[in-house]
Amino acid sequence: MKIAVLGTGDVGANIAAKLVTLGHEVKMGSRTPEKANAWVKTQSKSASGGTFADAAAFGEVIFNCTLGSASVEALKEAGAENLGGKVLIDVSNPLDFSKGMPPSLTVSNTDSLGEQIQRAFPSVKVVKALNMVGHDLHVNPGLLKGEHDLFICGDDDAAKAKTTEILTRWFGWKSVIDLGGISASRGMEMYLPLWVTIAMRNNFTPFNIKVVK
Amino acid sequence: MKIAVLGTGDVGANIAAKLVTLGHEVKMGSRTPEKANAWVKTQSKSASGGTFADAAAFGEVIFNCTLGSASVEALKEAGAENLGGKVLIDVSNPLDFSKGMPPSLTVSNTDSLGEQIQRAFPSVKVVKALNMVGHDLHVNPGLLKGEHDLFICGDDDAAKAKTTEILTRWFGWKSVIDLGGISASRGMEMYLPLWVTIAMRNNFTPFNIKVVK
Repeated sequence: MKIAVLGTGDVGANIAAKLVTLGHEVKMGSRTPEKANAWVKTQSKSASGGTFADAAAFGEVIFNCTLGSASVEALKEAGAENLGGKVLIDVSNPLDFSKGMPPSLTVSNTDSLGEQIQRAFPSVKVVKALNMVGHDLHVNPGLLKGEHDLFICGDDDAAKAKTTEILTRWFGWKSVIDLGGISASRGMEMYLPLWVTIAMRNNFTPFNIKVVK
Repeated sequence: MKIAVLGTGDVGANIAAKLVTLGHEVKMGSRTPEKANAWVKTQSKSASGGTFADAAAFGEVIFNCTLGSASVEALKEAGAENLGGKVLIDVSNPLDFSKGMPPSLTVSNTDSLGEQIQRAFPSVKVVKALNMVGHDLHVNPGLLKGEHDLFICGDDDAAKAKTTEILTRWFGWKSVIDLGGISASRGMEMYLPLWVTIAMRNNFTPFNIKVVK
């Protein structure tokens, strides 16, 4: 499948590399295409790079791995015409590190970044996913011993089914919990301060949570 | 031990009843003492009722089980002179239900209710605890199959040790995770929108989370 990954940071590079390994055609998009092309040189021939718009036009499915504080702007650069009608897996978090650790959120409580993106691009099928775990777990959930859960949400059921297929069959997640419409992004993003607090207390040793009933 | 429980709702009544069962002297405090006394009639002789101030003056340890939106005001009624120097276990959440479900928070992100209470009563040893699980689990964590975690935070280590003793020996919690100072209340309270979303998707069947490493 043709897949776009927007954002060349650890999150995007890690997901994109896994997708290449799985045999997919991956185009990495960046504000500065040089960054994307630097990543491409480390990959096999099924990887390519370009602008946010190049990547969005290329991908059938798009991962948003840009910094949350710049995501809406990055997606505007990608272009509504290139994103329209496609599944956008939104991995970003609206973290504000400007006052140090732990970060606060740039949007929360009565709105969320997932909702902002969905409102800005109404025809895009936004699925919030993977934002509640560290990037070391994104494509390697078996790193942890024992069962643990991944949460997703979004307004489009077919897009969530496609995302769940990617998460389970491609990335190895065994438990994906659908929390409903995109407004559930509020809870998924507001979990981050707790995540950061736990992570800091454990020197960022990989962890996740499991729902126990 | 002499214990005060502030708030006659499900949360307070449930915790107070357990403490009575364990043989402690419990004074239930309410803005309207008639509510506290109505509860007392359902209990054995070691239970008593009164105003917030009566209860706070009586208790060696104090549970804040008032509505989060009214907690600071309730504690002012309890009186700094009655609370000073004591361990206050803050179970409350700053939930705003005025716009229906799911609730938003009245304070979040760069501040928290736990911190507001600590700032308002500097000599009180505030420990945030039990706010991340439904009241059905507070004194009955064994209701769930499998291991799960309870989080606490606060600035006073001795107060956290006392609270942990109450949670483990009296209430039966097997895993209590100390998240650090009272500012960790932000993450513990901002978890609530996720909790509510999961709870609504499961018809409020009791659940909790476990940290998996």
